[in-house]
Amino acid sequence: MTTPSPTEAVADTCRLAHEAFRDWSQTPARRAKTLDAVAAALDARRGDVVSTAAEETALTPDELAPEFDRMTGTLRMFAALIGGSGLPPDRRSPFRAAISRKGDHTLGPNHDVRSMLVPLGPVAVFGSSNFPLAYGVCGGDTASALAAGCSVVVKEHPAHPRTGRLIHGIARAAATTAGSPGSLLGYIENTDPRDFSAAEQLVQHPAIRAVGFTGSIPGGLAIESLASERSTPIPVFAEMGSNNVVVITPAAAAARAEQIADELAASILQRFGQQCTRPGTIIVEPDEHGTRLVNRLADRISASAGRDMLAPWVRDAYARRLAEIEACRGVRLAARGGDMPGPRAGSACLFCVDDVHIAGSNLFHSQPTLREEVFGPAAIVVRLPIDRLGDLGLRPSLTHSIYFEHREIGTDADGTFDAAVNSGVHTAGRIIFNGVPTGVRVAEAMVHGGPFPATNRPDTTAVGPRAIERWCRPVCWQNAPKSLLPEELKDTSPRY
Amino acid sequence: MTTPSPTEAVADTCRLAHEAFRDWSQTPARRAKTLDAVAAALDARRGDVVSTAAEETALTPDELAPEFDRMTGTLRMFAALIGGSGLPPDRRSPFRAAISRKGDHTLGPNHDVRSMLVPLGPVAVFGSSNFPLAYGVCGGDTASALAAGCSVVVKEHPAHPRTGRLIHGIARAAATTAGSPGSLLGYIENTDPRDFSAAEQLVQHPAIRAVGFTGSIPGGLAIESLASERSTPIPVFAEMGSNNVVVITPAAAAARAEQIADELAASILQRFGQQCTRPGTIIVEPDEHGTRLVNRLADRISASAGRDMLAPWVRDAYARRLAEIEACRGVRLAARGGDMPGPRAGSACLFCVDDVHIAGSNLFHSQPTLREEVFGPAAIVVRLPIDRLGDLGLRPSLTHSIYFEHREIGTDADGTFDAAVNSGVHTAGRIIFNGVPTGVRVAEAMVHGGPFPATNRPDTTAVGPRAIERWCRPVCWQNAPKSLLPEELKDTSPRY
Repeated sequence: MTTPSPTEAVADTCRLAHEAFRDWSQTPARRAKTLDAVAAALDARRGDVVSTAAEETALTPDELAPEFDRMTGTLRMFAALIGGSGLPPDRRSPFRAAISRKGDHTLGPNHDVRSMLVPLGPVAVFGSSNFPLAYGVCGGDTASALAAGCSVVVKEHPAHPRTGRLIHGIARAAATTAGSPGSLLGYIENTDPRDFSAAEQLVQHPAIRAVGFTGSIPGGLAIESLASERSTPIPVFAEMGSNNVVVITPAAAAARAEQIADELAASILQRFGQQCTRPGTIIVEPDEHGTRLVNRLADRISASAGRDMLAPWVRDAYARRLAEIEACRGVRLAARGGDMPGPRAGSACLFCVDDVHIAGSNLFHSQPTLREEVFGPAAIVVRLPIDRLGDLGLRPSLTHSIYFEHREIGTDADGTFDAAVNSGVHTAGRIIFNGVPTGVRVAEAMVHGGPFPATNRPDTTAVGPRAIERWCRPVCWQNAPKSLLPEELKDTSPRY
Repeated sequence: MTTPSPTEAVADTCRLAHEAFRDWSQTPARRAKTLDAVAAALDARRGDVVSTAAEETALTPDELAPEFDRMTGTLRMFAALIGGSGLPPDRRSPFRAAISRKGDHTLGPNHDVRSMLVPLGPVAVFGSSNFPLAYGVCGGDTASALAAGCSVVVKEHPAHPRTGRLIHGIARAAATTAGSPGSLLGYIENTDPRDFSAAEQLVQHPAIRAVGFTGSIPGGLAIESLASERSTPIPVFAEMGSNNVVVITPAAAAARAEQIADELAASILQRFGQQCTRPGTIIVEPDEHGTRLVNRLADRISASAGRDMLAPWVRDAYARRLAEIEACRGVRLAARGGDMPGPRAGSACLFCVDDVHIAGSNLFHSQPTLREEVFGPAAIVVRLPIDRLGDLGLRPSLTHSIYFEHREIGTDADGTFDAAVNSGVHTAGRIIFNGVPTGVRVAEAMVHGGPFPATNRPDTTAVGPRAIERWCRPVCWQNAPKSLLPEELKDTSPRY
């Protein structure tokens, strides 16, 4: 027996996913049962999965435990959404069923029209480096695509191939036991971070109808470009880099400098900063309370221990970015955390820009690298009145946080506070009031997304029930005989 | 006073639209009032608008009358949707308001999160050649974008500049009278069909945040490409070419050959075939009943009169496509309608392919031009068993129609009928049962869209209330003080 070439492996996996799609797309009850079975099988191997991921990624079991629960919880949430036992009875169709009957108020010809979302076809999912469970083989993209009725081919991230294989084996066996073909969840091995051939073949394979990606801006744009060059372009949903902004009002700093600094430090250091929602640019007034806040934050970062990062190349990229920031004019290193030896070891860092304008030059305009994400436990504090936030020319991000005092609401004579809040409406997918950006609730009203370059598809969310809509498109049945309508669009449907 | 250069005109109009956006986006009640006022002002000038459009486009007043009603009706529908007086009280938010309260079942941190769609910013709308009213200056794209809270800059189609200016003048005056800035609806003149400079400048202007386009495949792709090359890419919603498929079962032809032929002929000839939903490829069995149907259809086309088309260049493009089809091997001209003199005059045409396979060669594979849309009053009948539809390799389209007999349902031993229906689920945005594809109802369940190349965004509809979502993206408020929430997300909101 010979091992298939990578090209053959991608082609075979995509072909099988295509074959699995037709049946899978038409059996929501079996989909729900299968997703529940996969969640249960993963729960039964929780210890193995968490310890394998901890060994490969250097994330701690304590960090991975809630991520594991989010992975299985998301599988179960989507199972419930499409008709599993957990569905609240008044819940509307996740497939946006709509019925416009003949005779209802109308413009144009008075046809009976009924529409709902249908799945696109096999979906390629690119596992992320930093969430081996929640954005890995059985993470949110896979769970939502499977629930939508798509089959999935996962290209695992090279940072944790053993975790990927382990989860894939468990999920595939559970799906088969539940009566579904194992081929509805394909797996493409990728252990060399410099080898993009499998990724390219996957995105350009004719059977693939959509792509989910979580990673860097260049990575996301490269995949989007490949997808758009196909003879039939397909949608790519790329969550890319995010330099999250945290704005602290002078009143908040005066009242709670230490508490806010401690929250920010914990947020920066959680999972050693390897999170897309980590605070990136922190804006604080150049007054004494702001100084208190910066000093306390610097103390916390200085007191942090060195740690291994997700992979040696993640550490190297982090080190390069730190050097770039440190080399910028007007930037001082406010704190550096402890170090440790080893090819993946990093230290936390806090930079401070005390004055954005030096000799008539705006440091953020002349040095745009200051606006870019640093992937790792680092942040830049900028000493600036919050109504000057626009001076920095920051790009949109996943989140926009504001720390304030409740008494500031309604006493905002010059509109400074309002502007600081509303800035988030135009530049982020989520506005956080008196809280850190890390920690994403999985719920209907969550928006995990944001304007370019945080994502390439600001109209969507990667977290919560509505993530299912990414893998679908609407179809309308006009004057269809009742027996030919999908269950969800029949007059008897309880879901409309 | 000097006339501004085209470049200056585009820049000024976009700048003013940007200035108008902030206020407009925050006042839904005024938006509703303004849209209603525009509809009323247009109604008051109905005669002028219809006669001007008839002169410019050669569409008849009878053809333009329902289109006029659809234009004003759509403006009023969107006014009602966002809170005008016509809104049914149980109507849910068109902005997809969602509230996940603290304490509700959750995964991850238990924050109060609330989300809704917010408008993107100024939108560029490219008026279509063939619907000067319903897809012109105050057509569906403009109405939905204005309702969403976006300002709009229309680039009018060069086929009917007088109609565009007239509608724009009426709308702008009505908006001003209603207390809104006229600049929320900008207008870019374009009278030369070979001059794309204004279009390019508009799509690349930094103030523009989304584009609506109705036209050809090359036009749509060119605009999408321009939009993706911006430093901040913006979404383009392009409705492009559609070669609509009509499948007729042998039983339907046996029972109703003449009736079906008459319906198809009327659909092909309506508005002289200059509709994106016009039947393109008609599949009918190579049996005696199919022959009856083709002969009757050919009679109807032969009996049709020559007519002026939308513009000389539309006629020339139509004539070129007819020549391309006629030159194909295995294609016969089954009927040609009457002719008339003049630079815009065209004749209806019916082509027939009696046998798709000639000497082992598939005519549709060796001559892919047969799969492409002919924009004008023409169709190709293919004599083929309906279970061989896949042989043609047709590309997806806006619609997929099937004529059948009700008694065929449930007696489909070999699955032929099911396959012919379900083919539409995978290749079209709307499946029509026993009807023609022309005639688009404006209603919630309508899907006017479809897979590439019918559109570049199969996840959206250009018709109906949900068209508003194209101009928006979701934003989430996390743990926001109640007084800082948008009205639609407050606990007291009647719309959630």
